[in-house]
Amino acid sequence: MSDSAETPNLMEALVSLAKRRGFIYASSEIYGGLNGFFDYGPLGTELKRNIRDCWWRDMVQRRDDVVGIETSIIMHPKVWEASGHVAGFSDPLVDCKVSKQRYRADQLFFAPVWISGVELTATFAQLNNIPPNFYVSALESEQTAVELKASADNIKRKKAMPGFLVMGDLRDMSDPTLTMEVISLIPSPATGEAGSLTAPRAFNMMFQTNVGAMSDASSVAYLRPETAQGMFVDFKNVVDTTRVKLPFGIAQIGKSFRNEITPRNFIFRSREFEQMEMEYFIHEDADWAKCHEEWITWCENWLKSIGLPASHLSRYTHPKEKLAFYSRGTVDIMFKYPFGVQELWGIAARGSYDLTQHANASGKPQELFDEASKKKFVPHVIEPAVGVDRIFLAVLAAAYAVEDVKDEKGNVEQRTVLRLSPRLAPVKVAILPLLKNKEQLTNRARALHAKLQKRYAVQYDDGGAIGKRYRRQDEAGTPWCVTIDFDTIEEPGDTFTLRERDSMAQRRITEAELFALLDEHVY
Amino acid sequence: MSDSAETPNLMEALVSLAKRRGFIYASSEIYGGLNGFFDYGPLGTELKRNIRDCWWRDMVQRRDDVVGIETSIIMHPKVWEASGHVAGFSDPLVDCKVSKQRYRADQLFFAPVWISGVELTATFAQLNNIPPNFYVSALESEQTAVELKASADNIKRKKAMPGFLVMGDLRDMSDPTLTMEVISLIPSPATGEAGSLTAPRAFNMMFQTNVGAMSDASSVAYLRPETAQGMFVDFKNVVDTTRVKLPFGIAQIGKSFRNEITPRNFIFRSREFEQMEMEYFIHEDADWAKCHEEWITWCENWLKSIGLPASHLSRYTHPKEKLAFYSRGTVDIMFKYPFGVQELWGIAARGSYDLTQHANASGKPQELFDEASKKKFVPHVIEPAVGVDRIFLAVLAAAYAVEDVKDEKGNVEQRTVLRLSPRLAPVKVAILPLLKNKEQLTNRARALHAKLQKRYAVQYDDGGAIGKRYRRQDEAGTPWCVTIDFDTIEEPGDTFTLRERDSMAQRRITEAELFALLDEHVY
Repeated sequence: MSDSAETPNLMEALVSLAKRRGFIYASSEIYGGLNGFFDYGPLGTELKRNIRDCWWRDMVQRRDDVVGIETSIIMHPKVWEASGHVAGFSDPLVDCKVSKQRYRADQLFFAPVWISGVELTATFAQLNNIPPNFYVSALESEQTAVELKASADNIKRKKAMPGFLVMGDLRDMSDPTLTMEVISLIPSPATGEAGSLTAPRAFNMMFQTNVGAMSDASSVAYLRPETAQGMFVDFKNVVDTTRVKLPFGIAQIGKSFRNEITPRNFIFRSREFEQMEMEYFIHEDADWAKCHEEWITWCENWLKSIGLPASHLSRYTHPKEKLAFYSRGTVDIMFKYPFGVQELWGIAARGSYDLTQHANASGKPQELFDEASKKKFVPHVIEPAVGVDRIFLAVLAAAYAVEDVKDEKGNVEQRTVLRLSPRLAPVKVAILPLLKNKEQLTNRARALHAKLQKRYAVQYDDGGAIGKRYRRQDEAGTPWCVTIDFDTIEEPGDTFTLRERDSMAQRRITEAELFALLDEHVY
Repeated sequence: MSDSAETPNLMEALVSLAKRRGFIYASSEIYGGLNGFFDYGPLGTELKRNIRDCWWRDMVQRRDDVVGIETSIIMHPKVWEASGHVAGFSDPLVDCKVSKQRYRADQLFFAPVWISGVELTATFAQLNNIPPNFYVSALESEQTAVELKASADNIKRKKAMPGFLVMGDLRDMSDPTLTMEVISLIPSPATGEAGSLTAPRAFNMMFQTNVGAMSDASSVAYLRPETAQGMFVDFKNVVDTTRVKLPFGIAQIGKSFRNEITPRNFIFRSREFEQMEMEYFIHEDADWAKCHEEWITWCENWLKSIGLPASHLSRYTHPKEKLAFYSRGTVDIMFKYPFGVQELWGIAARGSYDLTQHANASGKPQELFDEASKKKFVPHVIEPAVGVDRIFLAVLAAAYAVEDVKDEKGNVEQRTVLRLSPRLAPVKVAILPLLKNKEQLTNRARALHAKLQKRYAVQYDDGGAIGKRYRRQDEAGTPWCVTIDFDTIEEPGDTFTLRERDSMAQRRITEAELFALLDEHVY
């Protein structure tokens, strides 16, 4: 896995491979695409399905204490009032009145600039109320500071101003102490001129629509920004119609939508995405911290079980002072993406906040009865919430490698390989007849293919030299190739050549051994 | 299966079972629900997953000529202009200005009424331009004609009008010859008074939203009303990034949204639903009729393979004169639902219409190169399109039965049973220790449960008398119960009692035989 971290421009390579091999396309590409929306191609769809299925099998099917539900994407608007999303699910937005561009205030950075005949420091200037000559601005990126400095240099040069140049602290436009006076001096990144930026305003990230034939306030509804509320709203229904007993979880996989102002980092932050969330309900007196830790560990282990290297995973504990008032604690499992260490899986201890909110808003108690104390109580919840697309990108980044290998003649060539876990690989086995025009070979290959296909996603490939076919499968992440060769039909034992993707080692294998191998690794 | 057709109020029984056992809940029920939206509970989610998985495995994984994709729900708005949905995907809508109720014009029926001292016929009255005294109206239902007659009788009685009563032909309000003069005389179903209904207008059924921070015409986008356009828009991407060769198909499973004016029949016509669609691309000179027929047959066989009885399936061929100009032919596979025979699966031969539309609208040719003729051509397409929720409802209706059975003491009691195919059953096997407080039994049961759970959705149930546990599993559609009893632990052979859901027959079975049974029936 170490190769991947060292690959220069890994993100570019991933996007290119994703497109070239049919993992991910831009949505509506023939119409120029739609910012923040993506389509999954044939290989990507299988990989995504496998991520979902592995999670579901491990989280729901193989546990006795978790059940699954699927709730609608459009829910009653009161759900989002009770959850706090209507009032609070917003990003601060800054408009440029001239260019009509919009920016997230917390991603738009600026700094004051002093150009002076005498040497001074920003601190001295600020302490003595010496107004800056200019402000410079730039959008958040790895280069923000460099860009701001370049802008400042540029001003000095353009305006032919003599003297020293000093820059003040970088701040972003969501800074609550920012006055309109200063805003009016900050140049818009779009025009380079000051005077067109507005003060930040709250922009709700829920997509809005209207249900029914009326198109007025009474019919407003939202596309869910998370799947979690479905579990809270259906909590009593699940309790009443199944035999669950505390502690138990309700899990869901499904699409969510957030109208991000600046979607970015490929599928990492998109406007339409897929979540896998689980609400684990516990007694109000249960040891929530222990349960929280158990779920963090479970999630970490699960990520490793699908092939993410421990070296790329870390934990981030949200500082107490930044938590919402109801929150007991939140830990994010972070992944080292090509663009930096970012949140992959959030595990939140949310107390009884959500059920209580819905009880109050709906007038329907969300309580359970405690046989021991003979009292009613509202359960507390631990919530592990992860995005399918974020796992997809992490898996792709960790699996990607470019290696120098030797071809049959000993020449060094490069191969691109996706070291996907067999659980996730879109194709489990490729069946390759050595020659496509030798009926004895193709008949045996077809028979094996038909038998494997009943249970596994496999591929029959008879196109081109065998080495080229191996490379093709390496790039698709296929863990095993099976070659039907002359030994298969001429030697006893009906064996094939099994070629392993990662080691490129080859050995003879029987059909029964092949099925046993798959049974062991694909589950 | 025959029982189900004879069960009175089958629909009511299904809705009740679906709620009671956690198959389907109303969405946002604690907030009074949201018309046309549903949630799937624990058992329903597993059943729905199994429907999707069976389709995917048979349609994509087990075929060499079909690949899968997953495209975004929100696509570029130009997709829906090119497809014709912006201009034409509408229902005729009639408003009642007084009650603010809205009706689908084609579901709002009316008839002229003559009450006369002399005996006359509607034909005579119409031929001689004798104006009707009144109009009556009613919404479409099984009772429409009866309701209209009752309304007419009521008028006659209320107004104490003497003489004969004659009703003219039933017409619906989408009738294009309907004049405003007549509309003003038709009573609104909401108020019973004439004068408040408007002329029908086209109401577009696509849910609309805005993408990005602007909320104006430039940012309008739609929730897809079908998944099919994703396959057309990504056609070239799939061709360019995979090794598909004509004929080949692109399949997709995903949510679609239609802002139905009158959602009805439970999950049959809802506003948010899930589709399984496949576009099968063929050469422009291929025998489309043969290919069309092959796909119709494939779909019928598939429905039978998941347990729908042939007796409930029929075909409806759309009359030529009602087809869109580009359509070669459409056949619907119909299912005998409790509320009537309705469309389940439409198989349409759409020519090259969609690809051509997108080529024209995007300026990107959607052609393939024919090696034989050395000419470019636009492929034609056969489209089998089915709704997951409609299959779900058909499966539930066909599986549901209430039977008289004898209990251990020979007393007749009723059992409710869902005769679901083992492929679809939410729980494949229930593992029942005869007694819950006998460690020898529970240990063996737990061990078997753990082993089965690795591969299958199974349930451990030790609560209550064994007969009661069987009933519980019957109602959930579990095909097999395995009881760990004293023979298991005291007799040689380590055998269990296998109890079959449908026949209720019991026999001894070993662990190996149980796995073989599952392997045969669950695929």
